[in-house]
Amino acid sequence: MHSLRVDLGQRGYPIHIGTGILADPALFAPALSTGPVAIITDSNVAPLYLEALQKTLRKLEKDVLTVTLAAGEASKSLANIQEITGRLLSAGYGRDCTLCALGGGVVGDITGFAAAVYQRGVACIQVPTSLLAMVDSSVGGKTGVNHPLGKNMIGAFYQPRAVIADTDTLDSLPDREFRSGLAEVIKYGLINDQGFFSWLEDHMDAVLAREADALAKVIQYSCKDKADVVARDELEGGLRAILNLGHTFGHAIEAATGYDQYLHGEAVAIGIVMAADLSRRLDLIRESEQNRIYALVKATGLPTFAPAFPIDDYLAFMRVDKKAEGGRVRFILLRGIGSAVITGDVPPAAIAQTLQAFMEHEHA
Amino acid sequence: MHSLRVDLGQRGYPIHIGTGILADPALFAPALSTGPVAIITDSNVAPLYLEALQKTLRKLEKDVLTVTLAAGEASKSLANIQEITGRLLSAGYGRDCTLCALGGGVVGDITGFAAAVYQRGVACIQVPTSLLAMVDSSVGGKTGVNHPLGKNMIGAFYQPRAVIADTDTLDSLPDREFRSGLAEVIKYGLINDQGFFSWLEDHMDAVLAREADALAKVIQYSCKDKADVVARDELEGGLRAILNLGHTFGHAIEAATGYDQYLHGEAVAIGIVMAADLSRRLDLIRESEQNRIYALVKATGLPTFAPAFPIDDYLAFMRVDKKAEGGRVRFILLRGIGSAVITGDVPPAAIAQTLQAFMEHEHA
Repeated sequence: MHSLRVDLGQRGYPIHIGTGILADPALFAPALSTGPVAIITDSNVAPLYLEALQKTLRKLEKDVLTVTLAAGEASKSLANIQEITGRLLSAGYGRDCTLCALGGGVVGDITGFAAAVYQRGVACIQVPTSLLAMVDSSVGGKTGVNHPLGKNMIGAFYQPRAVIADTDTLDSLPDREFRSGLAEVIKYGLINDQGFFSWLEDHMDAVLAREADALAKVIQYSCKDKADVVARDELEGGLRAILNLGHTFGHAIEAATGYDQYLHGEAVAIGIVMAADLSRRLDLIRESEQNRIYALVKATGLPTFAPAFPIDDYLAFMRVDKKAEGGRVRFILLRGIGSAVITGDVPPAAIAQTLQAFMEHEHA
Repeated sequence: MHSLRVDLGQRGYPIHIGTGILADPALFAPALSTGPVAIITDSNVAPLYLEALQKTLRKLEKDVLTVTLAAGEASKSLANIQEITGRLLSAGYGRDCTLCALGGGVVGDITGFAAAVYQRGVACIQVPTSLLAMVDSSVGGKTGVNHPLGKNMIGAFYQPRAVIADTDTLDSLPDREFRSGLAEVIKYGLINDQGFFSWLEDHMDAVLAREADALAKVIQYSCKDKADVVARDELEGGLRAILNLGHTFGHAIEAATGYDQYLHGEAVAIGIVMAADLSRRLDLIRESEQNRIYALVKATGLPTFAPAFPIDDYLAFMRVDKKAEGGRVRFILLRGIGSAVITGDVPPAAIAQTLQAFMEHEHA
């Protein structure tokens, strides 16, 4: 097992990564509050890992309540916050309870938000079971639900008490979801860690084969890179925005397609390729660097072209994205592999050219 | 005008109290974020003060959007959080917007919570127009909405950027609501400020006549007492709970009557009388002190007896109240006028005796 720490003073917490650790009560005990526990999970994950987690918590003599949401992004709603808090209230759960998020990004995001707002804040433990959740959404305290008019538009910064990532749970992850998680992994190399990017170029076959050592390295480096950024800018006052590399384009792709054609990581993969292209157009990176980025995304089997929509539609979705302030769309661009820059000064013509270049055409 | 400060370091903020200050752009300017403004208000308050506040904000060249909720406690719902955030999203409001709560406790609570969760947090200014909101709910950052199963069960600690209390707005406050606000005022004297309690005994006639000087004193002292407690314990880790004097009984009365028979302050008034009785039964205060408390509550015209329900019903509502932890109900009791103590060790028999003593009987 490998452990690291998100260094946020009193709100700091450990990330444990290893095989079989879902069954280790000693990892859960220090993160639990004094009262009972509620496990929030979904209909895909519950049949696989719920019993194991219940068993672990009962060894700690905890009362355990379970809320199983329908699998899928549609569950990330205020209606389910009402449902979860209603279940907690019906069970008489007080401020001393702990919520455990057992699942992927959707479960982690809504559970973290439920913990943030139930009785104005209760303890939360993240138990991610997807690669995306392990390398990204379970770490850093961004929680929330979707509004019909925008994804993640209602939420809070709320740190968990611990992240417990049992890599055995990845065995059951469908291939498409596994690859989707790799988009965020590539992102860490690009924004922060040139050596990790090179390592990924050399070892993508082992990663895609889910070899244990390669997986462990991917998750450890990703968590460390994310924890470093979060520790320096918890509330996204500035630096933390670099974690959104590829997300301005990615969110627009998700929005334009109604959030049901692309997995988040797939949209981010296209967004990364576009961000690299835009960075090259603005002479921030060389064509050889852009080609390396394109090749690595391609090697993961992730998509590299966006669906065809009018460019104005894409631009409108970017403006409504929460990174738009004062009417200007902010982009995270690259100054090289391993170095990102945040800017609100991108010529609209360049954005349009990038969209045009990486959009699928019917007769391509 | 009188100004004081809630001392919370980077999250600290000013409270301005005075006549006609709703029209002073200079008080709003430092608290506004860089983007547009949304005023959240209700159907009672909008016809009276909305235009004045819009005018003030437009002097600062701000775009102003208005959301008018139906007046009343039922508006404090997650459904209205969805509605408010939907209006903000439709208008393209980003993280740089500011929400202004123009109204009483309901508007302040839901607006504060909307600000806490919209895009994970935007700026908020509290413009309280009721006595209760001026002396209590607008100060201290407790925000939230109700769940059908419990009041204030979904919320956040989220501090405003400023509280701007224009005492002219109290002129329009119905008598019953004005008196209701005085319950919290009496509370501050009881928990923290013996001199203020004595002053209230001597000047209740002037307060009830809404004499300007008396009102100013009431609001200034209440805000100062609350700000002191909040500065010492922002997240209610311990001390801040003394602000809940009378609220354990009070919330049970509100819950038992479906939240539509008693105003919050009326239920708190009965709760204060009960807490005094319980404190006397446990030999924490003398009978003469209990009598002074009863007399002052009575002098405000607030109720001092609870509606008749089985005692077990009241006890059940207390246990579900968020102050119950580990199954024990916490009470705030008095050790004298001006001094409160928090305890989870109250003999159930004594609670039952107090409920019995201050419950209305059909043939009383």
